[in-house]
Amino acid sequence: MKKRLCDLGEDALIARILKDFPGGGSLSVGPGDDCAVVDPGRGPLRLLKTDAIIEGIHFLPDEDAEKVGWKAVARVLSDFAAMGGKPEHLLVTVAVDPDREVVWMDRLYRGIRKCLAKHGGLLAGGETSSLPQAGAVISVAGEGSVERKKLVLRSGGKPGDLVVVTGRLGGSIRGKHLTFTPRLEEAAWLVEHLRPTAMMDLSDGLAKDLPRLAAASRCGFECSGDLPLNKGCTREQALGDGEDYELLLTIPGKRWEAAADAWKQSFPKLPLTVVGRLTEPGKGMKLQGGWDHFKPAT
Amino acid sequence: MKKRLCDLGEDALIARILKDFPGGGSLSVGPGDDCAVVDPGRGPLRLLKTDAIIEGIHFLPDEDAEKVGWKAVARVLSDFAAMGGKPEHLLVTVAVDPDREVVWMDRLYRGIRKCLAKHGGLLAGGETSSLPQAGAVISVAGEGSVERKKLVLRSGGKPGDLVVVTGRLGGSIRGKHLTFTPRLEEAAWLVEHLRPTAMMDLSDGLAKDLPRLAAASRCGFECSGDLPLNKGCTREQALGDGEDYELLLTIPGKRWEAAADAWKQSFPKLPLTVVGRLTEPGKGMKLQGGWDHFKPAT
Repeated sequence: MKKRLCDLGEDALIARILKDFPGGGSLSVGPGDDCAVVDPGRGPLRLLKTDAIIEGIHFLPDEDAEKVGWKAVARVLSDFAAMGGKPEHLLVTVAVDPDREVVWMDRLYRGIRKCLAKHGGLLAGGETSSLPQAGAVISVAGEGSVERKKLVLRSGGKPGDLVVVTGRLGGSIRGKHLTFTPRLEEAAWLVEHLRPTAMMDLSDGLAKDLPRLAAASRCGFECSGDLPLNKGCTREQALGDGEDYELLLTIPGKRWEAAADAWKQSFPKLPLTVVGRLTEPGKGMKLQGGWDHFKPAT
Repeated sequence: MKKRLCDLGEDALIARILKDFPGGGSLSVGPGDDCAVVDPGRGPLRLLKTDAIIEGIHFLPDEDAEKVGWKAVARVLSDFAAMGGKPEHLLVTVAVDPDREVVWMDRLYRGIRKCLAKHGGLLAGGETSSLPQAGAVISVAGEGSVERKKLVLRSGGKPGDLVVVTGRLGGSIRGKHLTFTPRLEEAAWLVEHLRPTAMMDLSDGLAKDLPRLAAASRCGFECSGDLPLNKGCTREQALGDGEDYELLLTIPGKRWEAAADAWKQSFPKLPLTVVGRLTEPGKGMKLQGGWDHFKPAT
């Protein structure tokens, strides 16, 4: 029997796709980080990102479409934040069955506009298309910008750097995954005050995303037994549930002490927690779990 | 019963979505043209575009995935061409069922790379996601560029301008819709030699797209009885089949005579045909047919 995507798994699939990417030219960071980075030669760098949410995978059919629209945009904004940047122009593609009620579409776009009005970015265009079966796919693409000296990649972490997360983890499925705040302000503060060596947003769970950040930085990692948990969540949920949309970052230990107090002044309601550290490559631990789009059914 | 999208139709749906678009800022052309246009203040203008193709709508499940990948990219390139521009950086989102064979994905990306290698543009990133049912959605977003003086919009046509198309129309479903050449070279030539007053690409059929171009230019239109037909096609097919991916443009009559001969020298195999003219608004004719994603089943 021929090999299927679920026999391969998501990370292996992506590696396979990226193998023959050409890259180069004005593309200073290609696939593999939260956004691609284009260097226009002068002025701020341009960030490019695309991200899709799918009915039945990222939201349920009976979900309020306004929240769905919010989530579709906020996910992309979260990726701009993770690079130290901000959103500029977004394109929205909506593919739905023709039997969908018009009011659903109205609410979807209300959520899209609400998120942009609150967090910045202009709706520049997009597309509507029909789906041949009941369902909905919302794909949001766009460009952001980041000042050259503020760009943070996944790959800049060093052995010994502390691993830090914003907010609390786990249990996002109970509602936060639809209403979360993209951490644009927080990321801007962190870049200004803590100069993270590496950063990404937590979309597939710490258990998937911390190994990805460590691998991009050519490090191993250790992860604390004591994670900042959302109410009623276990450590396993915090590691594996995914869709936290918090920031995961690394910083040299000497910058931590002073900054932790300053953070509390600026964001008194949002914890900033050391959850581990990077190690030499091949050292450290492994983590199990997290979300994989192409894993076999168990 | 509540109103559904298929009761509304595609053009009315888009008008409804666009009603509350904010626009403005660095966005010099918003939704409603082939691409959005961003003015970075100096140098070339930036073109933004997103476009999705869907299994069961834009291609059949047993289609060669290499052709599907080609088509997904070529459609976006065709939109850059229609503005007088060229492709720069593309992002590709692929959502498929986890049971899909790995070799399908390999062939899809081979088609994507082939089209970019031939026509320009770098693959800058993208995403893979699972679909909850059998199917595939390939969404391609990206940025292109166009020199300021070469930008052509849909809205610049004037009453009396000739309406011109490249190539032949109709019957695309027999194969051309998967293998077509995005008209980048042809558009560059036309902009250089004919200075079109308005231009767009033909994706939904002349019967849908000519009225759109005329409306954007605040004109009426007349359409010739004599269209350049693909072999074995009727006028009705040329008007309504869609997916021609030829250029539709308008030019003042006095530029036509000299240029028609020069065109034959440069593109001897591709006809360039006058198919009508723009009229004063409210005059001219109407056309029936063309592709609508949200029309009621008949």
